[in-house]
Amino acid sequence: MYAVTITEPGGPEVLQWTEVPDPEPQPGEVLINVTATAVNRADVMQRQGQYPPPPGAPPYPGLECSGTIERVAEGVEGWTPGDEVCALLGGGGYAQKVAVAATQLLPKPRTVSLDDAAALPEVACTVWSNVTDLAKLKRGETFLVHGGGSGIGTFAIQYTKALGARVVTTARRSKHDALKELGADVTIDYSTQDFAELLKGQVDVVLDIMGGSYLGKNVTVLATYGRLVVIATQGGRKGELDLGALLAKRGLVAANTLRARPADEKAAIVRGVHQQVWPLIDAGRIRPIIYRKLPMTEAAEAHRLLESSEHIGKIVLVNPDAISGA
Amino acid sequence: MYAVTITEPGGPEVLQWTEVPDPEPQPGEVLINVTATAVNRADVMQRQGQYPPPPGAPPYPGLECSGTIERVAEGVEGWTPGDEVCALLGGGGYAQKVAVAATQLLPKPRTVSLDDAAALPEVACTVWSNVTDLAKLKRGETFLVHGGGSGIGTFAIQYTKALGARVVTTARRSKHDALKELGADVTIDYSTQDFAELLKGQVDVVLDIMGGSYLGKNVTVLATYGRLVVIATQGGRKGELDLGALLAKRGLVAANTLRARPADEKAAIVRGVHQQVWPLIDAGRIRPIIYRKLPMTEAAEAHRLLESSEHIGKIVLVNPDAISGA
Repeated sequence: MYAVTITEPGGPEVLQWTEVPDPEPQPGEVLINVTATAVNRADVMQRQGQYPPPPGAPPYPGLECSGTIERVAEGVEGWTPGDEVCALLGGGGYAQKVAVAATQLLPKPRTVSLDDAAALPEVACTVWSNVTDLAKLKRGETFLVHGGGSGIGTFAIQYTKALGARVVTTARRSKHDALKELGADVTIDYSTQDFAELLKGQVDVVLDIMGGSYLGKNVTVLATYGRLVVIATQGGRKGELDLGALLAKRGLVAANTLRARPADEKAAIVRGVHQQVWPLIDAGRIRPIIYRKLPMTEAAEAHRLLESSEHIGKIVLVNPDAISGA
Repeated sequence: MYAVTITEPGGPEVLQWTEVPDPEPQPGEVLINVTATAVNRADVMQRQGQYPPPPGAPPYPGLECSGTIERVAEGVEGWTPGDEVCALLGGGGYAQKVAVAATQLLPKPRTVSLDDAAALPEVACTVWSNVTDLAKLKRGETFLVHGGGSGIGTFAIQYTKALGARVVTTARRSKHDALKELGADVTIDYSTQDFAELLKGQVDVVLDIMGGSYLGKNVTVLATYGRLVVIATQGGRKGELDLGALLAKRGLVAANTLRARPADEKAAIVRGVHQQVWPLIDAGRIRPIIYRKLPMTEAAEAHRLLESSEHIGKIVLVNPDAISGA
């Protein structure tokens, strides 16, 4: 098969479409004929040499994919060759085939095309595990997601709106109309407006990707019993925490990452997503927001697009064989 | 009745034994003939004018008491005049009588004298609500409590030992033997040893009273999925939080306070304590650790003792009538 390999740590140009050995599914795994994968920030960090894949994961980037089950190894129940699926991966999505634990499979939603379904697993699992499983966002609460135009942002807006939350997001001004259409009640332009000032004491759950640079402001916006969940540190690792303020709010700061979790926890998250998120997709309440689809051979261009931060939603990479076959 | 009043914000000498009007129980409340109360850091802060009592609470200090129910107002079920109880209070324990919501009552444990029982409600509710209800400490996990000689510390050591945790505490060297006798597996002298170095990555739950000055070190000692719960900021409000480190551990920092919680939450905590802590007291697995008992008329001396930090355990103030009656 072919896969996108990282020839050496570096810029987008180090991503090369290369012939590599086929993966071999282990007991409990299935082999997927990949239709598409989607691009995540973690792939960029992996390309730069900053985020090695966890032990046992394929060396190629790609934390999610969609496709058709080609083969089922021993110990797998409930899945059959020919099933259309999407999957949460430890890596290896930028490839024509990938082997993955059956516990990380989700059926392709009825209302979504097979290539679009590649854009769902990572955002659905990240948002559900942090917003519902960890932070326990409830109907009527106020939810803030930073970077509303990202894959995480566009999914989180739709998901929390469907849960009945009041949804607030920060994004550059040019994206506001699109984010309101997805369900954002309030959009804040972080380049001209101070979100901490505007939302002081109002937010029950913050989903944050900035980390250190936003820590003080994120604590300021928390309401009593507010929960701040940090899932990336794009604005730096360290920040000053006012524990006196957090104490007065009886608040909570959690930091979380999906990729490093052990298999049993990923399985539990995928089950939760299947039970609580998939019905919302089937009902048309949430749809994958796709900014651009490119063939996997253009992975470098996809990374350039992601790094520009001008996109709204996900960037999908399609297996060239799946394109010619369509 | 008489109560300890705060004549003006200041040192221990502003605490005066004064004749004041009797409290009147409202619907849902009981009137307690107080046998004893116990001294908390919050009382010192209240005396200094830094911690006003919450709305509706009596103006006198005292967050807990023991005594005998004198009268039951309408809407109270399950309690009868003559019952020996202890209670979690919003204030007013330094007095001969106090009115309190029946939901904040606990029966006097069989194995504890009525005046010693005054030392239990605040530590039991604080430790259970943070260690069990919030941080969900489990058997076999490692627990660290700072200031092991405090009322909170002496209770938390016994409670978490009874839960089956590995118990670590920091305290000045002179207290180590006593804390080991209570169940501490490891005692660390904070004045000569670096607890962060010794416990790096090993602790599942930290119960902290220092706040800002310990934040960095407390995060250093957290294990994967470690939980840091801050309940006071004796070492300052602010500290630097390394969110990158917290992310790698999928950790959590919570800050919490008991006194400001609404009535329904206090009721739920008292129920939890009754179900999960009281049986351990009845079984002799936890006992109140009392450093000194003084009459309420010597509240000033009790505050001086607490501020010296030389005590191990709680300082109890006994109603002079209860002493002469004994």
